[in-house]
Amino acid sequence: MSQLNGNLLVGQSGGPTAVINASVAGVLQEAGKHECIEEIYGGLNGIFGILNEEIIDVNEEKAKTIEGLKHTPAAALGTCRYKIDFKKKPEKAAKDMDRLFEVFAAHNIRFFFYAGGNDSQDTSHKIHLEAVKRGYELRVIGVPKTIDNDLPHTDSCPGFGSVIKYNATTVMEIGTDVGSMATDDGSCCIVEVMGRSAGWIAAGTVLAKQGNPANPPHIILLPELPFKEEKFLAKVKETVAAYKYCIVVVGEGLKNEAGEEIGADKTRLDSFGHPVLSGAADKLAEIVQGKINLKTRTVKLGYAQRAASHFASATDANNAYACGVAAVKAAVDGKSGFMVKIVRTGQGKGIKWSTGLQPLEDIANVEHFIPSDWIAEDGFLPGAKFIEYAGPLIEGEVKVPVENGLPKYAVLDKVKIEKKLPARA
Amino acid sequence: MSQLNGNLLVGQSGGPTAVINASVAGVLQEAGKHECIEEIYGGLNGIFGILNEEIIDVNEEKAKTIEGLKHTPAAALGTCRYKIDFKKKPEKAAKDMDRLFEVFAAHNIRFFFYAGGNDSQDTSHKIHLEAVKRGYELRVIGVPKTIDNDLPHTDSCPGFGSVIKYNATTVMEIGTDVGSMATDDGSCCIVEVMGRSAGWIAAGTVLAKQGNPANPPHIILLPELPFKEEKFLAKVKETVAAYKYCIVVVGEGLKNEAGEEIGADKTRLDSFGHPVLSGAADKLAEIVQGKINLKTRTVKLGYAQRAASHFASATDANNAYACGVAAVKAAVDGKSGFMVKIVRTGQGKGIKWSTGLQPLEDIANVEHFIPSDWIAEDGFLPGAKFIEYAGPLIEGEVKVPVENGLPKYAVLDKVKIEKKLPARA
Repeated sequence: MSQLNGNLLVGQSGGPTAVINASVAGVLQEAGKHECIEEIYGGLNGIFGILNEEIIDVNEEKAKTIEGLKHTPAAALGTCRYKIDFKKKPEKAAKDMDRLFEVFAAHNIRFFFYAGGNDSQDTSHKIHLEAVKRGYELRVIGVPKTIDNDLPHTDSCPGFGSVIKYNATTVMEIGTDVGSMATDDGSCCIVEVMGRSAGWIAAGTVLAKQGNPANPPHIILLPELPFKEEKFLAKVKETVAAYKYCIVVVGEGLKNEAGEEIGADKTRLDSFGHPVLSGAADKLAEIVQGKINLKTRTVKLGYAQRAASHFASATDANNAYACGVAAVKAAVDGKSGFMVKIVRTGQGKGIKWSTGLQPLEDIANVEHFIPSDWIAEDGFLPGAKFIEYAGPLIEGEVKVPVENGLPKYAVLDKVKIEKKLPARA
Repeated sequence: MSQLNGNLLVGQSGGPTAVINASVAGVLQEAGKHECIEEIYGGLNGIFGILNEEIIDVNEEKAKTIEGLKHTPAAALGTCRYKIDFKKKPEKAAKDMDRLFEVFAAHNIRFFFYAGGNDSQDTSHKIHLEAVKRGYELRVIGVPKTIDNDLPHTDSCPGFGSVIKYNATTVMEIGTDVGSMATDDGSCCIVEVMGRSAGWIAAGTVLAKQGNPANPPHIILLPELPFKEEKFLAKVKETVAAYKYCIVVVGEGLKNEAGEEIGADKTRLDSFGHPVLSGAADKLAEIVQGKINLKTRTVKLGYAQRAASHFASATDANNAYACGVAAVKAAVDGKSGFMVKIVRTGQGKGIKWSTGLQPLEDIANVEHFIPSDWIAEDGFLPGAKFIEYAGPLIEGEVKVPVENGLPKYAVLDKVKIEKKLPARA
């Protein structure tokens, strides 16, 4: 391995989380320790901004702002869902790749870190391969991020622990509320959470039960398992008979037996061409009220769940930070084309967290689902193996400073570096 | 005033809040200090349970459980929406009142405290008048409670400070998330909050702005002001042009110029005969996407907002507790037919909170709206007077113990006393 000197560029991509900024803080604070890293830059709005030379000089930021990123939600550098798509748009992708390496060369970028989920790891992988092909010396390390927890090979994904800590807390609180209103007629509340195809987020709310069957949630509907209306309604009735109320958690991507999303509004598409999902809980409420005449309300947490740093998991935030640190160490150590992964050893109070590296080619576009034997036979609740897995991820609370009664989050000054290239065509 | 000895009964009514249990803790802890109060009872599910002699012996509860009520959401005694309605059902109401006084007499109830909103204060008022009419010695004091903040004569209602602290935090976090995804196309997120006729809850999210016009929320739609579509869409466009994204907060009861709720589903009625509101945000999203083609997502916090003790306001919880304490002191002091009110003196850091008493006849069924000069001229944001009023209500955080990464809330053992009457007819 040759000693490589040059500048660092870090970017964020995809849907934000409560702890993706902690990973960036890890990259930035570790970067400052290595002489081979000269300037430290941040790309605004991921690849989208980098292609436009929208780059900030991190050395212009206050140290306390960088420190504050550890408890600040969303993507402080800005994020994007921009994809360099050689399959669907090969000409545009080739042009983008040329431009990207022009930007890298113009600013002597030699260390590139990209925090994101499946699509973003795919982008990092392509950039790594392209650098090798072009003979441009570049160290590319992917930093894992996704509330969906669907990246393979890593114990868990930064962002997941925090979303399930907040969602489980919310389900517990909603259950206390609905349970205290429970009179003979009974009532139902359906909480819709994120999760397009993998049900990790919905499943994580099982932690609110604390091992007591009477506690909410009473039913969890995972997008992996086809929705069976009659079985579901029977379970709702059984629950209301036992406890006078029923709390249902549903992943937004719940599908019927024909594989169609029950809450999909197919007239609305996101930038990747997926249908926008918004109505699983409302659809279920219609069914429950219409078919068994049970008073039913809905809650849709939406973006609130992935941005809830005010009750984020310290374990999650620490792991997110460690991924950023490990990414820089690996790159300085000569590695490229890897994603940092989280590694768990031990059990219970003896759990230890560390990081490892996995080739990006093993990660990109592979979705990791909940093992089927982690879900109870009737399909309504994750079982002991899931709980043993997920429980440690919500331990500890991130300390957030409060000002005027509200969380005080860090905001970057974003001092842009001078552009050196003509504007993108 | 004659010295009155006897038993105490406390009940909770209406929609729960994050701090209504703090008021009950205040009643119970203060009650223990007065010799004239013999047994301390709790009515399960408010009047609904009391009519069925569903009464628990609070002395069977652990002291630490009572202490834990100070940070526990929802109604630990259970609540109801049962109304003794002399107007619509005079015969049933007269029968209920007879039964209620049979229960009071059977258990020598001489001190009655009822925590609730407008309807519940009306119930307390009727019980007070009935006791006078019957010559049954009873001290009735109403304890204020409602996230809606629409009780008159009190500075604020316990529950309100906590709901706006949580909602403002959530709007701030959602704004950080949506803002960090903002690319040239722009995007919009509409957050639906509670508030059927008074817009206090929606208005309270203005605190998230922290005085900066660029901060969310950018538009707040209050149910008091008729929705004007063109003006609203113009404001959304103006906001997206300036900041690339727009966060809208809407009170669930938003009405059109004909006075119809824009999100009402008139086929669903609650137990008071009001239409169930569920769709204001979804309706607005349809309008924004359909008319100006802006990517729009919705969040519906529903029950989560009023149960979010994990980030409740310490000012609110302290005031709620003080109301419970003051209720007992007033009753022991010979008062009956009053509601405890919260009184604020001083300003800024010098604010002092105390309590006072207001005759129940001034309270029952009167709704308190936001003064019109507290709202900016264009109707989209509350102004300085509102902020000066609401800001102090969210100061401080309630300390909640955490176990296994989740809040640990108190649960009453609910040891029932022996019934002495035949079952209710």
